[in-house]
Amino acid sequence: MIYFHNDYNACCHPAVMNKLMQTQAECCPGYGMDSHCTSAAEKIRTLCAAPDAAVHFLVGGTQTNLTVIAASLRPHEAVIGADTAHINVHETGAIEATGHKVIALPSADGKLTAAQVEETVRQQRLSGDAEHIAKPKMVYISDSTEVGTVYTLRELEELSAVCRKWGLYLFLDGARLSYALAVTGGNVTLEDLARLCDVFYIGGTKCGAMFGEAVVISNPAIAEDFRYLIKQRGGMLAKGWLLGVQFEALLENGLYFDLARRANVQADRIRKTLLEIGAELPVDGGSNQVFPILPNALLTELGKAFTFAEMGQDDGQCRMVRFCTSWATRDGDVQALCDALKAISKN
Amino acid sequence: MIYFHNDYNACCHPAVMNKLMQTQAECCPGYGMDSHCTSAAEKIRTLCAAPDAAVHFLVGGTQTNLTVIAASLRPHEAVIGADTAHINVHETGAIEATGHKVIALPSADGKLTAAQVEETVRQQRLSGDAEHIAKPKMVYISDSTEVGTVYTLRELEELSAVCRKWGLYLFLDGARLSYALAVTGGNVTLEDLARLCDVFYIGGTKCGAMFGEAVVISNPAIAEDFRYLIKQRGGMLAKGWLLGVQFEALLENGLYFDLARRANVQADRIRKTLLEIGAELPVDGGSNQVFPILPNALLTELGKAFTFAEMGQDDGQCRMVRFCTSWATRDGDVQALCDALKAISKN
Amino acid sequence: MIYFHNDYNACCHPAVMNKLMQTQAECCPGYGMDSHCTSAAEKIRTLCAAPDAAVHFLVGGTQTNLTVIAASLRPHEAVIGADTAHINVHETGAIEATGHKVIALPSADGKLTAAQVEETVRQQRLSGDAEHIAKPKMVYISDSTEVGTVYTLRELEELSAVCRKWGLYLFLDGARLSYALAVTGGNVTLEDLARLCDVFYIGGTKCGAMFGEAVVISNPAIAEDFRYLIKQRGGMLAKGWLLGVQFEALLENGLYFDLARRANVQADRIRKTLLEIGAELPVDGGSNQVFPILPNALLTELGKAFTFAEMGQDDGQCRMVRFCTSWATRDGDVQALCDALKAISKN
Amino acid sequence: MIYFHNDYNACCHPAVMNKLMQTQAECCPGYGMDSHCTSAAEKIRTLCAAPDAAVHFLVGGTQTNLTVIAASLRPHEAVIGADTAHINVHETGAIEATGHKVIALPSADGKLTAAQVEETVRQQRLSGDAEHIAKPKMVYISDSTEVGTVYTLRELEELSAVCRKWGLYLFLDGARLSYALAVTGGNVTLEDLARLCDVFYIGGTKCGAMFGEAVVISNPAIAEDFRYLIKQRGGMLAKGWLLGVQFEALLENGLYFDLARRANVQADRIRKTLLEIGAELPVDGGSNQVFPILPNALLTELGKAFTFAEMGQDDGQCRMVRFCTSWATRDGDVQALCDALKAISKN
Repeated sequence: MIYFHNDYNACCHPAVMNKLMQTQAECCPGYGMDSHCTSAAEKIRTLCAAPDAAVHFLVGGTQTNLTVIAASLRPHEAVIGADTAHINVHETGAIEATGHKVIALPSADGKLTAAQVEETVRQQRLSGDAEHIAKPKMVYISDSTEVGTVYTLRELEELSAVCRKWGLYLFLDGARLSYALAVTGGNVTLEDLARLCDVFYIGGTKCGAMFGEAVVISNPAIAEDFRYLIKQRGGMLAKGWLLGVQFEALLENGLYFDLARRANVQADRIRKTLLEIGAELPVDGGSNQVFPILPNALLTELGKAFTFAEMGQDDGQCRMVRFCTSWATRDGDVQALCDALKAISKN
Repeated sequence: MIYFHNDYNACCHPAVMNKLMQTQAECCPGYGMDSHCTSAAEKIRTLCAAPDAAVHFLVGGTQTNLTVIAASLRPHEAVIGADTAHINVHETGAIEATGHKVIALPSADGKLTAAQVEETVRQQRLSGDAEHIAKPKMVYISDSTEVGTVYTLRELEELSAVCRKWGLYLFLDGARLSYALAVTGGNVTLEDLARLCDVFYIGGTKCGAMFGEAVVISNPAIAEDFRYLIKQRGGMLAKGWLLGVQFEALLENGLYFDLARRANVQADRIRKTLLEIGAELPVDGGSNQVFPILPNALLTELGKAFTFAEMGQDDGQCRMVRFCTSWATRDGDVQALCDALKAISKN
Repeated sequence: MIYFHNDYNACCHPAVMNKLMQTQAECCPGYGMDSHCTSAAEKIRTLCAAPDAAVHFLVGGTQTNLTVIAASLRPHEAVIGADTAHINVHETGAIEATGHKVIALPSADGKLTAAQVEETVRQQRLSGDAEHIAKPKMVYISDSTEVGTVYTLRELEELSAVCRKWGLYLFLDGARLSYALAVTGGNVTLEDLARLCDVFYIGGTKCGAMFGEAVVISNPAIAEDFRYLIKQRGGMLAKGWLLGVQFEALLENGLYFDLARRANVQADRIRKTLLEIGAELPVDGGSNQVFPILPNALLTELGKAFTFAEMGQDDGQCRMVRFCTSWATRDGDVQALCDALKAISKN
Repeated sequence: MIYFHNDYNACCHPAVMNKLMQTQAECCPGYGMDSHCTSAAEKIRTLCAAPDAAVHFLVGGTQTNLTVIAASLRPHEAVIGADTAHINVHETGAIEATGHKVIALPSADGKLTAAQVEETVRQQRLSGDAEHIAKPKMVYISDSTEVGTVYTLRELEELSAVCRKWGLYLFLDGARLSYALAVTGGNVTLEDLARLCDVFYIGGTKCGAMFGEAVVISNPAIAEDFRYLIKQRGGMLAKGWLLGVQFEALLENGLYFDLARRANVQADRIRKTLLEIGAELPVDGGSNQVFPILPNALLTELGKAFTFAEMGQDDGQCRMVRFCTSWATRDGDVQALCDALKAISKN
């Protein structure tokens, strides 16, 4: 079976594993108070041109999302997200479990627009009974999004501007950040994110690490006492240096960015083949996730040798699925998938 | 200024005040452990033909909603409601503050259908990654709804059936229950509600009392330890008998139902006049709330002598407002409103 | 049966009821946005010499405690209280249900000292692993306390000073504030409380009202968006003017203070009799609650005609109970109790 | 610097790392739905003689504690723990953040007794105002405890019996379980724990793994929908097989137990030396943690070459510290510590 199911079904890039091996004999202070975390955080601050930013390492995405949001909001405050947002649909109500409403706005492409945010905030703030309505205080976006699309610099600037206008925090979930940055070809940088967001994270789990997300907090109001929040929410890894070590490895010589570029190229090969065989790609952002609508019969056949993710929409004839590449995807496997797609679609 | 703003801008029906006066000199045990609460609860059980139901008295609606939902759900469980549901839009995220997601389904008329519930539950339960999705476990409906519509017996039976099929609780918010029951002309009864719902409440605040909601719990799983929940959520009134006394007064000789019938008749007079002057009533359920779309100019003029509620939709020319009657609405005031509507619309 | 069980077993002082009667025909805007609340709040600001303080009216004590604390703390912050504190022992974990730890410190007399607070905060703040320990951020005291004791001005000043030194909020639960102020004979004033506390409340429920607590917030950080919190926690009374009206009545001509003075005098009569018959009063603060240790046999006999509260400590021979006076306590009833105590103790 | 600070300052036992290396090239389904987790869970069920137990793998201890407790309790229910319990003092209020009170009982040796539990539950259940008191529903114990003591089989049986008598859950935090089991010399087994507890966990992080705790749930009420809870609380590792692989390695040929026995032996060497030099060990359980009271001067000198944990009690002359051994502690390091202790204490 060849895996295109997701971008977290392989352990970690060899460079990460090597670094873990090299440091295996070290004794380190716990809870991220070690030199590896310090050095990785410093490297991130440099890449972000944000010498005052706080950098923290957490294990996974849902944990990071709920910790950041719990750290940022007072009880009556809510977070705005696209209706497809991970926090809205795939975290078992984790944000609500911290006490906060997720205000889900309709989105065809997984992205929020500044205009949507403006309208939502205006409606609440200027309402005659504002106090009866959960108060939008944060905007959550993911980049790349859950449907593989990517924000342009301009879109991010507009979102940032509307957030600052109304006193909202902008939070960017970067679980798949490397793939997004690779799509923009350097037009959006970590520096931009640190400047435009109040808080964002550099995803490791889906981008080459065993696990780990590096949170970058520009806004001191969110940064204050953040380690208390990490501990309280169960996200403070006892052997915290395991996170620092992995980010040290990923950020060395731009490996983090190279891996994503390569994965995107492979997704492009799949994308191209899909278009050749006449598949519809209703939403496509050029990153490592490809969401074609394909005939059920073709998928049944394909499923004998390849895994892919179901996207839950089936009209009886066709349905949407996801093919996902990653640092671990091999050229031969992409070739095999493309060949199979062409062969089956011919029958 | 004549008030049609809402149905809670007057103190309480004289019969309620009289009963409070009569009992003023009594000394009672606190926290609802008194004979008035016992007697009112017994009366409600009789009216519901539900000898085993638990009956509790709380002060207000939001408090009741959050207490019932917190008592019913485990942390990962969610409550389904219409997008117009009070718990979704007008309680400042009170349900989320207890840790639970509100799954808001689109509704043009403020009501949920059994088919919508079936579809939502099926989608989650049969999903390949069900555990990543908040689990629908309760259905919240309000009757009459926030837009004045009313459930038929058949609709309630279908909702109840789909809930039982999938193991969901059915919770009916009866803040305006008397007006809804009056619309159905006796076709839906308290007995039906006790049979079909797992928990519902008989609203007092908007139906003749100073304050108070009587919760009726048919399902023992929700009833267990319910008083702990009331206390924990700040809803246990120290002088609990004040609630019992008010419900004793309201339920004597059917006063509760009479007041609603009368309010609905008065709303009908307004409704009739609105239709006569050509106003559109996009959603109308026949209860004590009337939601016309009227010209801004007319409303400006009308607003000099009458209060009404803004519904937030303004196309520059017209907007929707709400006229609301209650036990406290006087015939003369309705006449004055109808006269004014006709006079202004002629200009 | 003559009631000395508690100070909330009678409806309300006649002056309060009269004012409610007089205003019964009024139509008022809901949710406390009415002229009665405005006027009562203004009166309170004047009494407190705190022109910038925010004043809000809530229905009951647990509700007020949980709303104030939820409004004040970030998730990892905790509130310090005496081990006898109402929030620690008698609110079914209401504070924890908002997500916050109650740090309970031992107290023989129901009061906290500045030294205890200093020690607790110092231990956490200076700990090597401070981030693993819930961060004390608020001090909760009740005055009079749950065991009837009363803070002196000096004690309050010291508590306030230590709180400001460490950046903690000082919150005074004044459910029985009138009795405490009466004990100090004017030495502690509302003005002092507004100056020394970040937030406190003037209790109504146990001090002459049907229900109601007036929250006075001096600290703008807590005041911000406070009405959102009230609504979210279910404490926003639809007919909010009922609270304003009651406080208008209580604060007219010093009635609020007079009622407490009278209740304390009556408690003194009981106190004196108890000492005469040789009862031990291990903790005594001179307010309206008296906590003697009495022989079980005597209590059995006394219980045939009088109610009192059990305090849960029984050594087989004797146990502690509570006699409680209020504005509603009649001279004759006190006389009857004193006579009975003397008579029974002679046998 | 030689580390005796804690038992989580080294990466993982070589056997664990080898297994991770061997499986590095595998592609696995995410979220613990892989064959390694299945096989490790099956092995654990066998060791526990609990074929119906649910077994789940989480990353860390605080996360596990808060997830288990949130899964087990309704909002008004509380968990009883020793005042030294990790959940009470070292998790930044993580349990309270899930809404539940921790009822802390005094304990000189870090253990709870059945009698204490009985007394606490009885006091609440039989109270006249039980509903105003958070309801004890779970007992949390750690084995070995935070001060290194260990439960005997009899103590566990008594705790289990009192829990069942009153309908409480018994939850054993086994972050350091291997050390505890090694102390009893096989007198307490995993089989016993599965039989006596409703839920417990087999700690990995402090016992040879990189990270990971294996939760064993005997009680179906807690097991129901447990994966939803893991996901909601941020504890579902994307690459879940990393946990399964580690437990496979640890449980092979009894490695898990061997490592603990060895660590305990080394702690014994330190213990013996400490007694020889006249140090006081106020609480001692024979496991891998040793808590001597030593002169400040000695510790200053010792601290130049060795790390140890501060226990926060300093009388100006002496203070308590902790020496901790683990699978990673080398014989030579123990020898060096013992030599240094003797040498310094002679001066």
